[in-house]
Amino acid sequence: MFESAEIGHTIDKATYDSQVPALREALLSAQLDLLEQARFPVLILISGIEGAGKSETVKLLNEWMDPRHVQVSTFDEQTDEELAHPPAWRYWRQMPPKGKIGIYFGNWYDQMLQARVHKVIEDPRLDQAINGAVRLERMLSEEGTLVFKFWFHLSKKHMKERLKTLENDPLHSWRLSPLDWQQSKTYDQFVRYGERVLRRCSRDFAPWYVIDGSDEHYRSLSVGRILLQGLQAALKNKGPAKPSPHAAPLVSSLDNRTLLDALDMSQALTKEEYQEQLIAEQARLSRLMRDKRMRKFALVAVFEGNDAAGKGGSIQRIAAALDPRQYRIVPIASPTEEERAQPYLWRFWRHIPARGKFTIFDRSWYGRVLVERVENLCAQADWLRAYGEINDFEEELSNAGVVLVKFWLAIDQETQLQRFKEREETPFKHYKITEDDWRNRSKWDDYCDAVGDMVDRTSTAIAPWTLVEANDKRFARVKILRTINDTLEAALNR
Amino acid sequence: MFESAEIGHTIDKATYDSQVPALREALLSAQLDLLEQARFPVLILISGIEGAGKSETVKLLNEWMDPRHVQVSTFDEQTDEELAHPPAWRYWRQMPPKGKIGIYFGNWYDQMLQARVHKVIEDPRLDQAINGAVRLERMLSEEGTLVFKFWFHLSKKHMKERLKTLENDPLHSWRLSPLDWQQSKTYDQFVRYGERVLRRCSRDFAPWYVIDGSDEHYRSLSVGRILLQGLQAALKNKGPAKPSPHAAPLVSSLDNRTLLDALDMSQALTKEEYQEQLIAEQARLSRLMRDKRMRKFALVAVFEGNDAAGKGGSIQRIAAALDPRQYRIVPIASPTEEERAQPYLWRFWRHIPARGKFTIFDRSWYGRVLVERVENLCAQADWLRAYGEINDFEEELSNAGVVLVKFWLAIDQETQLQRFKEREETPFKHYKITEDDWRNRSKWDDYCDAVGDMVDRTSTAIAPWTLVEANDKRFARVKILRTINDTLEAALNR
Repeated sequence: MFESAEIGHTIDKATYDSQVPALREALLSAQLDLLEQARFPVLILISGIEGAGKSETVKLLNEWMDPRHVQVSTFDEQTDEELAHPPAWRYWRQMPPKGKIGIYFGNWYDQMLQARVHKVIEDPRLDQAINGAVRLERMLSEEGTLVFKFWFHLSKKHMKERLKTLENDPLHSWRLSPLDWQQSKTYDQFVRYGERVLRRCSRDFAPWYVIDGSDEHYRSLSVGRILLQGLQAALKNKGPAKPSPHAAPLVSSLDNRTLLDALDMSQALTKEEYQEQLIAEQARLSRLMRDKRMRKFALVAVFEGNDAAGKGGSIQRIAAALDPRQYRIVPIASPTEEERAQPYLWRFWRHIPARGKFTIFDRSWYGRVLVERVENLCAQADWLRAYGEINDFEEELSNAGVVLVKFWLAIDQETQLQRFKEREETPFKHYKITEDDWRNRSKWDDYCDAVGDMVDRTSTAIAPWTLVEANDKRFARVKILRTINDTLEAALNR
Repeated sequence: MFESAEIGHTIDKATYDSQVPALREALLSAQLDLLEQARFPVLILISGIEGAGKSETVKLLNEWMDPRHVQVSTFDEQTDEELAHPPAWRYWRQMPPKGKIGIYFGNWYDQMLQARVHKVIEDPRLDQAINGAVRLERMLSEEGTLVFKFWFHLSKKHMKERLKTLENDPLHSWRLSPLDWQQSKTYDQFVRYGERVLRRCSRDFAPWYVIDGSDEHYRSLSVGRILLQGLQAALKNKGPAKPSPHAAPLVSSLDNRTLLDALDMSQALTKEEYQEQLIAEQARLSRLMRDKRMRKFALVAVFEGNDAAGKGGSIQRIAAALDPRQYRIVPIASPTEEERAQPYLWRFWRHIPARGKFTIFDRSWYGRVLVERVENLCAQADWLRAYGEINDFEEELSNAGVVLVKFWLAIDQETQLQRFKEREETPFKHYKITEDDWRNRSKWDDYCDAVGDMVDRTSTAIAPWTLVEANDKRFARVKILRTINDTLEAALNR
């Protein structure tokens, strides 16, 4: 993996000086195209051996390009806000928007390598981290992000020489390496695990580039050229997304009987049963949220459902049980301009609760496989890959102690019609019914298929879907509260 | 101040029950109007005596209104990210956007009162905090935010009774007051300083409402009514901003000689002088930024200037001296959708650097008194009040250890014309020249007036303007770097 980066490539100063001006101009011009097209962001990951020219190269890229549209992020010590969120949160919050270039120093690779070298984790956990990285980058790449990964390399001998030089250079003392790089053992281990990481994470959509860091001119020209070629190719390629290998529409069940048909929609509660059970479950939720063990967890509830199925009312019954300081309700409408400039999941990541908190999503990331699928708002390839991306996302949350509860509130067509009419007739509820609702209704069967596929593909052990029979609002509200409580209680007792 | 809130107001349950439904419906309907108009945000500050019903009321408001568009924020312990920024940063990052309601628990008032009661600060500092609060709220209010401030009150006797009740109620144990509220002395001091705060911060644009918290029904109805009336009035009032008392255009100097005319534009450096001085100042900046004392400071540089005056080139020369992990360049273009939904300064607050970091603003908050003034993009009243708001803003930054350097890069008309032509003729620089540039040029005199007023009104001891004679790019770049270095050095040595 690193062999060719240790043979000591060099480029003499004259050649370098003669080539840089044209490269610079081309890079700057590509950057301007990128900015103007604003079709995708560029993410550059910088990793490798200490002293191999990582910060020098980043500095140079800033000089060669317009630094106003390059955003360098470092990820050293986690802040306490970062510690209170799932590990990926810190990377999501720094994502460059479309048209811009983000450079990540100390990215997920450094984190996993440091942890492995210092024996904070063992091989199985390293492999998990590697798989997580591949999934994340695949998703970013499918969302349009152009990912470059540079590994700056040095042979052990070169590294030792380099660290010595830096030490004696007062102007560059900020680049003094951490103590452990002075030790041979660290180098050996870093290279050993680095090899494994590079091998498994070098994919067509985000390959690793190993850069020989021993010669400044060679290193700088190499990185510049790779960036330029990648950028130019991506800027030229304006075609539609490539079709997914399984782009044939999903097959609905052969007997035409969906999951939703199997629900017993007649379930109901009397007013007395409702009052009693509602209060009991609300008190239970209030108690659970104030449980000391909750400090280690966060809670996320996702509400999806037919129009007029009673999402709003159910959410209000949950809110009524809680201290308003503990929860936040996030209504998902059309994405804002800043959200549209980011990968799909970004706008949900920004609302993921810190430990001890509860976020209720009124509609959610499932919009991609529901409304966006049915209304053709995204390409088929996009919603087809979304199932896997969503499962990855939810696993990340779950691994970080986020308890997930997902509800589909189902009503039948007659009940919906009745509620629509009621809303149109009650001046106070009139705002709740729009043209969209009637249009969605005309696509009832499409939605049924979408819901069936969604549940089949994203109801997982860590984040199962709960289908809620919501013809009777009382029954639905109690079932929802009880499900949240059961799930949360199980998590706290685990 | 609190007398009438201690006489023991009550409302019986029957009256309450009969009045709530109409109030609720009206509140919800006002909230929907707010959301639909999306013209202004609502900020509700909750303060007062422990046990007087603060959290109960917030909970109730969430029940009465649609909780999906109410955002409750708590400000207890500062996180380490918050500690690394100026104190107001944490409030700015939680600001509700237009159309939404934000409720601030533990806002700036609690912070100043706690600090004073526990003798962390003395009276002069309390007075400073009070003045800061008034200025902030005035600015928010002028930006359109509707501010409500509720002080929930209880007599000492009532408070003691209430804390006892809460203690014995297992369902409500989360509301158990911090220990110090159990002491009479805390109450006395809190009320004493509270009186002072309320007296001085109750203004027409954001009055305090003292709520008798002893009776739940009275309390709830009072808050609901006040909110409803305030909301309805604000929703109805769609008139233009009221003219500023000094709305007459600023008078330009009688002899028609502006600050800019007084500059010696012939200053220049030879290539050799430039090379030598540039490198010396870059090394100096690099050294200063890596100084250990820098950990207590942050650095902000603001670049404004004539079109083609060389802002970009100057910024690049600064960047070249720095580790890219230390600085960030923020180019200010048109505000995004999320930024437009916030008070004017919000989009700058979000980029204020943490301690140890350096942010370079390529154009800045001065846009309001420059381009927005000259192009009539905001009302005259808006830019007239901006001078004071900007001074307040910069003082806040400065108090928190942010070192501010502000540059106006000035060139004369001939030089600009020459550079415009050059840009049009060089394919590589072509992107730099647009219709806007030619239009701005035609308003040269207006910009001169605006710059003169800006410097007169916002060049302060804590954040002086540096006018840079930029006909000679070399001279300008060195002067800029040297000014940054001198300012930063002085701050570190202070």
